Amino acid sequence: MGISRIGQALTAREILNLVDKDMRRVEDVMRMESVASVEAISAINRHIQASGGKRLRPTLVLLSTQLFAPLTDTAIAMAAVVEMIHTATLVHDDVIDAAETRRGKPSTNALWGNQTSVLAGDWLYMQAFQVAIRARNFRVLDLLIGMTQLMVEGELLQLERLGRIDISETDYMELVDRKTASLFSICARLGAMTGGANEADEARLGEFAWNLGIAFQLVDDVLDFTSRENILGKPVGSDLREGKVTLPLIYALQDATQAEREKVAAVLREQDYRSVRFDEITGIVKRYNGVERAMERAERFTERARALIGEFPESAYQRALFSVTDLVTARDH
Amino acid sequence: MGISRIGQALTAREILNLVDKDMRRVEDVMRMESVASVEAISAINRHIQASGGKRLRPTLVLLSTQLFAPLTDTAIAMAAVVEMIHTATLVHDDVIDAAETRRGKPSTNALWGNQTSVLAGDWLYMQAFQVAIRARNFRVLDLLIGMTQLMVEGELLQLERLGRIDISETDYMELVDRKTASLFSICARLGAMTGGANEADEARLGEFAWNLGIAFQLVDDVLDFTSRENILGKPVGSDLREGKVTLPLIYALQDATQAEREKVAAVLREQDYRSVRFDEITGIVKRYNGVERAMERAERFTERARALIGEFPESAYQRALFSVTDLVTARDH
Repeated sequence: MGISRIGQALTAREILNLVDKDMRRVEDVMRMESVASVEAISAINRHIQASGGKRLRPTLVLLSTQLFAPLTDTAIAMAAVVEMIHTATLVHDDVIDAAETRRGKPSTNALWGNQTSVLAGDWLYMQAFQVAIRARNFRVLDLLIGMTQLMVEGELLQLERLGRIDISETDYMELVDRKTASLFSICARLGAMTGGANEADEARLGEFAWNLGIAFQLVDDVLDFTSRENILGKPVGSDLREGKVTLPLIYALQDATQAEREKVAAVLREQDYRSVRFDEITGIVKRYNGVERAMERAERFTERARALIGEFPESAYQRALFSVTDLVTARDH
Repeated sequence: MGISRIGQALTAREILNLVDKDMRRVEDVMRMESVASVEAISAINRHIQASGGKRLRPTLVLLSTQLFAPLTDTAIAMAAVVEMIHTATLVHDDVIDAAETRRGKPSTNALWGNQTSVLAGDWLYMQAFQVAIRARNFRVLDLLIGMTQLMVEGELLQLERLGRIDISETDYMELVDRKTASLFSICARLGAMTGGANEADEARLGEFAWNLGIAFQLVDDVLDFTSRENILGKPVGSDLREGKVTLPLIYALQDATQAEREKVAAVLREQDYRSVRFDEITGIVKRYNGVERAMERAERFTERARALIGEFPESAYQRALFSVTDLVTARDH
């Protein structure tokens, strides 16, 4: 689909090649900024950085900056900052979800315990802000801190709704906006700002990334039903076990029978696949095309994202941002 | 003692009267800034604010500013910011210590659970920074974020040392510096900065408050042995039960017999006063003058604080800051 629009869509490999050298500089900054006077923090940071991750958020910053200007140290720093904030959020989320694995490795809380993980998350937030402050730009700080607060509120909203079967599509989209799309949007806007973009372009690129972020989270939630543990890096079906009813299931529940609804309710109640097996749940989701409908919804957001990025002048970085939309939807983990 | 130095020491009541009207403005800012789109946060913030506390940190900001200039909205905002950061720290600390009460009321984690409390603490940090950013002063942000990180590292260090009986006085002082004195120092420096003080005066007032903070924490740790639950607002002997060996006990252990040492070790091992009663522990502390020696140590820090504040020109606010040192040492909770 991307190809018909601009003729030269990039493959995932080509996008990564475009930012590869710069991403190594981002990794260097993260490594340098993750050494603390308390050894536990340094150890946790090494563990997290070694676990990797897709680095999608810093990629967005790097590509967005270069849509407007050559890369600067500030852009590298901003890319590191958003990944550090993202990581801090994950560390606290894993405590809250009592997650045992993350990216195929034991989670921080599984290795160091909840107490240390709470403080390590706090430390990472502060370190990210310390790096951000050095840019001496108040708007950058306004965006970063406002967005972090929005994400925390999103987590709290999610927590309040845990275990509820009557989650509406609107409830769900509110969480996706706060938990994922807002940070994506900020990444693009920080990049644009650092590249010297005007306000209209910054806002437009932010909207592009917001749509991309929504699609990303929708696909994430689909993968929790369709992927396999060794590919996903964590057990499939985790969302429902943790009490989270996501879009594929929300759609299926709209048409499900009372007996099927009761099966979903049982998993939520028991917080495990005990009296109901996971494949019974995926069976229900499949029966009512929950995955297809959620993927169609994701596709509408990536289409909107593609239209928005298509409005920018053609360049290698514009094509790369266009192609990131494919990366987000066509993935298995 | 204060009286011999400057002739006109203020009583606690007189100090409070001096900042009373301004503190109500600080409380208003805190109330306004504690309303979130997520009801749980607003409810937690109302609970915390109603629980009160000594408001020592905002008092320090208000008095420090007025040592140099009339009060401004920025000074009021800074006073609110330091109290919000302090509160966020307490919320996370209570999660980490699994504390059940704080200031005579159920702790946040006891009422809302650990998960919500972790996120509420995060939210409060971000809100404090949002308010601070509005002052559009990078040095303010440098100080606040650097100090918050120092406090978090202090908590982590404390966590690593939990349950250890071989804590030295140096280990202990390092924690007191990070956990309490640094924030006191920042309060005075923020006040001085907002009042337009020169760098030398700002540094000197910061040192005054640092000494005050050390004394404050030493007295706090003494009170955990000497006070009563209904006065302290939490069970006495909590520190040792939680695995924290503090100065009165560190001093006593230097001279204690092997049998007495074994009693302390038993409480640390059992994390409770089970095979050893609390009054056996206070007996050991008394036998070796642990409380007196810790209070003498505290007194040396308040004396240093008094000497430093004595170098500033006399004024109502200078006298108030002088008298705060009495407030810190001569208290029962």
